[in-house]
Amino acid sequence: MKVADLSSYLLYPNPEHPALTDQVIGKDQDGNEVSVDVVTERGLTVYLNRQEIVTLMTLGDHPHYLALGFLLNQNMLRPDDVVTGIDYDEELEVVIVRTERATNYEDKLKKKVRTSGCAQGTVFGDIMEKFDGMQLADASRLPISAIYALSKQINTTPSIYHKAGAIHGCVLCEGDKPLVYMEDVGRHNAIDKIAGYMYQHGIEPQDKVFYTTGRLTSEMVIKTVQMQIPILISRSGFTAWGVALAKQAGLTLVGRAKGRNFVVLSGEERLVYS
Amino acid sequence: MKVADLSSYLLYPNPEHPALTDQVIGKDQDGNEVSVDVVTERGLTVYLNRQEIVTLMTLGDHPHYLALGFLLNQNMLRPDDVVTGIDYDEELEVVIVRTERATNYEDKLKKKVRTSGCAQGTVFGDIMEKFDGMQLADASRLPISAIYALSKQINTTPSIYHKAGAIHGCVLCEGDKPLVYMEDVGRHNAIDKIAGYMYQHGIEPQDKVFYTTGRLTSEMVIKTVQMQIPILISRSGFTAWGVALAKQAGLTLVGRAKGRNFVVLSGEERLVYS
Repeated sequence: MKVADLSSYLLYPNPEHPALTDQVIGKDQDGNEVSVDVVTERGLTVYLNRQEIVTLMTLGDHPHYLALGFLLNQNMLRPDDVVTGIDYDEELEVVIVRTERATNYEDKLKKKVRTSGCAQGTVFGDIMEKFDGMQLADASRLPISAIYALSKQINTTPSIYHKAGAIHGCVLCEGDKPLVYMEDVGRHNAIDKIAGYMYQHGIEPQDKVFYTTGRLTSEMVIKTVQMQIPILISRSGFTAWGVALAKQAGLTLVGRAKGRNFVVLSGEERLVYS
Repeated sequence: MKVADLSSYLLYPNPEHPALTDQVIGKDQDGNEVSVDVVTERGLTVYLNRQEIVTLMTLGDHPHYLALGFLLNQNMLRPDDVVTGIDYDEELEVVIVRTERATNYEDKLKKKVRTSGCAQGTVFGDIMEKFDGMQLADASRLPISAIYALSKQINTTPSIYHKAGAIHGCVLCEGDKPLVYMEDVGRHNAIDKIAGYMYQHGIEPQDKVFYTTGRLTSEMVIKTVQMQIPILISRSGFTAWGVALAKQAGLTLVGRAKGRNFVVLSGEERLVYS
């Protein structure tokens, strides 16, 4: 495989990290012994100040970004909150985010019980209320050549996906340049890690493009809109509710992006056909 | 596409059902208008007797089986419970399962773990405690020719996947015969629908084989073991924890099953190489 030009990346996967994959011995179709690389999957319990919020099943890398991004995307951490510290204990699989503001989400955590399992990725109930008032800025434009360039670069970037499969990737991009590439066994985690990275490094969303290997479900659309990124691209397909929510918020939704093919089902005005 | 022999099926997908896909108008890479089939995704709130348990995001078919299977796989409905009624209100998107036994899972509802499925699943906290005591019976055997036959039949069965993509499939099989094929936007829903079907129709698990299009994560392994099905096959890959849990419970775990290739990483003694 021809490896992508990695010079535009601020962060990209490290498939050689020993904690992210295991080797398992098995047998193949001919009964021969084979060694197979498999992705790891471990618990991470997130605390906000003194309160236990959730246990995520995750690849395990970038716990700080994951915790921050999860709390942001659940509206528990506000964009203007001052984070005074993030403590990660690898052995206990716990990460504690501390803020200047005193927080108490007991009511919200109760509400999650009633909406749990929801594929909108919002364990907690009030996300949809906030979403209904959101509208993305119209200014950004993307030439369709950038869709091809991004797909090609991302697909040729060394990754845990190439090594072990069974993993999703999300990439924050600007124009035709990938910037931050995160992977996780759960794609809701991969997108949350990027949200955490953007928050920590003060990256503006309005001129960015979001690429995901996974399907364009309601969950991915809601999170992309919450992060105020106006363009979402996937090599995978759509769900009807994902499309409806994208139209509602004015998100450009590009799916089935493979080689020189794609379909845009919402916000096509941001794409510039040459 | 050559269509599979459907004679062995008790139930298989109906891709022509108007409620399960929508047509959305968009543009393709050349700026031409295209009509795209997309899967629907809707809420279903599950009650057990008077208690609201969860809201699932689902394709929307087979709500009775989904509710039953969800409650069974969360250990909220016991295999020996007498179900006195299942009421489904399509307009309210609510399904109520009523049992002879009085139920109250308030404590259980407080403890939740988000799992790493594509569309996220939810596992309540005490599942792992129960799992730790489980061991699958060793008796069943499967010739490897059945793996090829099942893959071929399932992949050529008309499905919403073929029509619209962006969906997962789970198939209950016996030997080289597929029996019950369920699809859903969340694969945890597809497996729960099969659990509900098996419960409702009194189908024994010990001589069955479970096939999934999705990854072999911890969640899929835990549910297959809970359902006491000894063999799990996927065309997709593995996670390390999925493999570890399969070994612990003695589950035969076959992944990357494509064409004449596969890898078995646990319980290979049940496979018969010819």
